[in-house]
Amino acid sequence: MRDFASSGRGRLARLAGAWAALTIFLVLNTASAFAQSDPLPSWNDGANRTAIVDFVKRFTTDGSVDFVAPADRIAVFDNDGTLWAEKPVPFEFFFAMDEIKRMAPEHPEWKATEPYKSVLANDMAGIEAAGMKGVGEIMVATHTGMTTEAFSKNVADWFATAKHPVRQKPYGELVYQPQLELLTYLRDNGFRTFIVSGGGVEFMRVFAEKIYGVPPEQVIGSSGVVKYELGADGKPELMKEPKVEFIDDGAGKPVGINRFIGRRPIIAIGNSDGDREMLEYTTAGSGAGLAVYIHHDDAEREYAYDRTDKLAKLDKGWDEAVAKGWQVVSMKDDWKVIFPPSK
Amino acid sequence: MRDFASSGRGRLARLAGAWAALTIFLVLNTASAFAQSDPLPSWNDGANRTAIVDFVKRFTTDGSVDFVAPADRIAVFDNDGTLWAEKPVPFEFFFAMDEIKRMAPEHPEWKATEPYKSVLANDMAGIEAAGMKGVGEIMVATHTGMTTEAFSKNVADWFATAKHPVRQKPYGELVYQPQLELLTYLRDNGFRTFIVSGGGVEFMRVFAEKIYGVPPEQVIGSSGVVKYELGADGKPELMKEPKVEFIDDGAGKPVGINRFIGRRPIIAIGNSDGDREMLEYTTAGSGAGLAVYIHHDDAEREYAYDRTDKLAKLDKGWDEAVAKGWQVVSMKDDWKVIFPPSK
Repeated sequence: MRDFASSGRGRLARLAGAWAALTIFLVLNTASAFAQSDPLPSWNDGANRTAIVDFVKRFTTDGSVDFVAPADRIAVFDNDGTLWAEKPVPFEFFFAMDEIKRMAPEHPEWKATEPYKSVLANDMAGIEAAGMKGVGEIMVATHTGMTTEAFSKNVADWFATAKHPVRQKPYGELVYQPQLELLTYLRDNGFRTFIVSGGGVEFMRVFAEKIYGVPPEQVIGSSGVVKYELGADGKPELMKEPKVEFIDDGAGKPVGINRFIGRRPIIAIGNSDGDREMLEYTTAGSGAGLAVYIHHDDAEREYAYDRTDKLAKLDKGWDEAVAKGWQVVSMKDDWKVIFPPSK
Repeated sequence: MRDFASSGRGRLARLAGAWAALTIFLVLNTASAFAQSDPLPSWNDGANRTAIVDFVKRFTTDGSVDFVAPADRIAVFDNDGTLWAEKPVPFEFFFAMDEIKRMAPEHPEWKATEPYKSVLANDMAGIEAAGMKGVGEIMVATHTGMTTEAFSKNVADWFATAKHPVRQKPYGELVYQPQLELLTYLRDNGFRTFIVSGGGVEFMRVFAEKIYGVPPEQVIGSSGVVKYELGADGKPELMKEPKVEFIDDGAGKPVGINRFIGRRPIIAIGNSDGDREMLEYTTAGSGAGLAVYIHHDDAEREYAYDRTDKLAKLDKGWDEAVAKGWQVVSMKDDWKVIFPPSK
């Protein structure tokens, strides 16, 4: 080895050339070996799985009419109801409720004031009665008035121990196994996977890399105003203010994609009308685009909700999907399993 | 070859193992071979070059107290005056002036109306007399009222042919050669390089990948409101509205970094007071952070401006740099060349 190290760049160059040839050979053969195995093991054979795989091949095969350079292979995923479950309420609201309970000792007045009173009593009907105003107050109390660092720590502490009150599982286990495989499959094919969600961007960033492999700068979401200040000790801080900055939902999703990514995606996956414009935008480019709706039709293994759901309806978007030939995935028929095996 | 291809995964696996060992060996030796060569050839030896290289080693060497995992190696660069020149005015303003001239045939009234009249006459004093209001009108006329696609095409067409009116060079040649080397050096060491600029994000995204190797989603800048609409033909469009959405300057830079990246950088490079908070924020984390100011002190090869400049002063930030031990790079003393060789 010492001879090689001291032999100079000429020998290194020849060795590098041999290595390059060997690498190309191995990559070609390993890729085809893996392709023969199943990249989406939890997806049943069917029109949807076939369409997804076909699109990926069209985008990534040299010489294909629809070939897209790796730099432009952008896939966007909604989060709630698309990558993980969102019932009975989006999990960020469970976080907020748990935070109210955690902070209650510092707010004795909450015991007698709605909506906090209903949260402390786990009274969902009482919370619903408090309406959007009550939900807003719960979000302000738990998402604003602290630094971004403190907020992220609150989320991390919660995520490490909290369990879904009905399913009694950590929220990180309520992700969709077939979607984890899809994320991996796309990344293996040179895609960059982004989350484009109406949920809070700072909430999701705490765990999205861990549970989805999506790093913070590839998470796009809603945000409140943040202000740069010097704290009491003169140290710079970012304070979360009680003012909405951007709602990344509906028509806001293509706006957010344009602002945060700056490229039109070629694959978009959602589950509700709030994703409709994102799927429209993705399929309106000059080249091919794949739009996929995940339809919640599995009351037994997960939840069944669509056209009439109060929080996440899939109604106008479904009609558009049918009219435009977007893929509509049936969780019941297309997915062998819903959640990953328990740890 | 056919024997290998048909021999199944066992042989592939052994071949892959041998390849892995060879790769590791080559990478180790090639890296050290390159390290013996000069990664920053246009930077003179001196305290600043040494500090930059030392910091990068501290961040990237296994076992170092300041080791940072690749995922957290974020470097942020201002653009105007840090990556390329910004005199006599930031180049986006030259774009706006050229657009006024291009659009003038459709606006005969501009011949008699300020500030358009002064722009058409190349009368910089007249433009200055029109003040911020006049500048705002020029920006609205050239940056809003069209789709994002149309705007990007206008920028691309301009960038392909426009020349700096004084230096008579394409703007893409007025980048700083030592900074191109620094971008490459950081990326070779596992950093992700972002631009964090007060300039327009949609303006910069058209050419940042080409001239700096920074892809659109790693460009953070100022933006106007964008609205998602269905155009006349029913096709989705993003319309640029005449309303400011976010100014990515001063205290806005850490806010923008938090929103768009979601991680604190460990290296930040700027040239004016507008970068002060970004450099503060970068060096206020729990670990080490490198803050660098590029000081324009080379009247002969570029421009000399600092404490009293009207557009890009370096005054309070310089004092803070000295007080806190940030690097202050002298373009005159630290840079062997300013611009890349002409093409």
